Amino acid sequence: MADAGWPGCSKSLKGVVLDMCGVLYDSGEGDGVALPGSSPSVEALKASDLQLRFCTNETQATREKFVAKLQRLGFDICVSEVFSPAPAAVAVLKERGLKPHLLVYDGVLPEFDSVDKTNPNCVVIGDAAEKFSYQNLNEAFRVLINLEKPVLFSLGQGRYYKETDGLKLDVGVYMKALEYACDLKAEVIGKPSPMFFQSVLNDMGLQPSETLSVHSTSSVLGLHTSHQF
Amino acid sequence: MADAGWPGCSKSLKGVVLDMCGVLYDSGEGDGVALPGSSPSVEALKASDLQLRFCTNETQATREKFVAKLQRLGFDICVSEVFSPAPAAVAVLKERGLKPHLLVYDGVLPEFDSVDKTNPNCVVIGDAAEKFSYQNLNEAFRVLINLEKPVLFSLGQGRYYKETDGLKLDVGVYMKALEYACDLKAEVIGKPSPMFFQSVLNDMGLQPSETLSVHSTSSVLGLHTSHQF
Repeated sequence: MADAGWPGCSKSLKGVVLDMCGVLYDSGEGDGVALPGSSPSVEALKASDLQLRFCTNETQATREKFVAKLQRLGFDICVSEVFSPAPAAVAVLKERGLKPHLLVYDGVLPEFDSVDKTNPNCVVIGDAAEKFSYQNLNEAFRVLINLEKPVLFSLGQGRYYKETDGLKLDVGVYMKALEYACDLKAEVIGKPSPMFFQSVLNDMGLQPSETLSVHSTSSVLGLHTSHQF
Repeated sequence: MADAGWPGCSKSLKGVVLDMCGVLYDSGEGDGVALPGSSPSVEALKASDLQLRFCTNETQATREKFVAKLQRLGFDICVSEVFSPAPAAVAVLKERGLKPHLLVYDGVLPEFDSVDKTNPNCVVIGDAAEKFSYQNLNEAFRVLINLEKPVLFSLGQGRYYKETDGLKLDVGVYMKALEYACDLKAEVIGKPSPMFFQSVLNDMGLQPSETLSVHSTSSVLGLHTSHQF
């Protein structure tokens, strides 16, 4: 089936990029649950000649905490294999000499430790959840509106996600709010930004044509079942 | 000047619609301040043959409280002359048999006393200010996303406004947030919605060509200075 779907794939394929939430595990109370077959799939990929990286738009925790959770769920994953928006944002900020005002979840703040945040000349928002108060959004807005050339980075652009106590608004909703307030277009860092995928490819030293991105459970289970690796 | 700007205006003009904030007064601490010349302008208009109505996108107070403030500032204005989004929304809700989930400032809630709010099948948002918490916005979102045909009404679509302690995000920002979250287009009630202006014209029994809308201080002072009325 895989051969029919991707002609020549098995010859040119050199790397795999796996989404995490919804592919490896489902979020929920505590650590969430590993999806059936996903941990053996990761093991099979690691035992193959393929390079393997993981992608997540998780912006409520540092990669360290996030990876520790995945390890508790039984996955053989290390921090250097995981790509998330916050470190990507830090790289962009440093490259462009920008100093951020952060509106992010407390848990992810340590990712920004190395960044100068005095006299901010841009705003970075993540999935700040309860921190998306009227006051905090006003504060981010005022930073932007007072800049000669306002720059807004959004760590992802999700609309909403499900938690055990119901649906929750995601960062994309607040990105749209600030875009309208300041009449600007945010720069999205994270999935599905091409720049974000490119940074993963760069890390593997591969071309897009040599890489397979897996975004849903059915694909990963399919890969496992068909014993491609 | 007015004659040159609006040829034939003085012959066909039968009514005037005045914006309030920025035309009659500037908001600020307490009641704010009346703008110079605006109170005599209102008196002159009232003494003329012209019909006079007032428009506001104020959605933090009932018209009663709002008009009382204007009276304290020296204006001869009564509630029946003032058009604001909340009563217009109530009319729309009743006409369409809709039951709202309200995300509005507490001060404006009495305007919705006559509306059935059980098992809501639409959402109405106003300038809710501090009530635009993450939790309250999630709640409004969940109502919308669970409806077969989600309907969102926004009382105005302002981006931000100035208060004595700085700029504040306005309802339009949260309208955009919910529009993106639910992939819908809100129905705006209030300025600059044509439906809203039409309701004012209907009340006067006038056509648009017979009416002058005044949206800025300079116009109102200009009218006063040129003694058109």
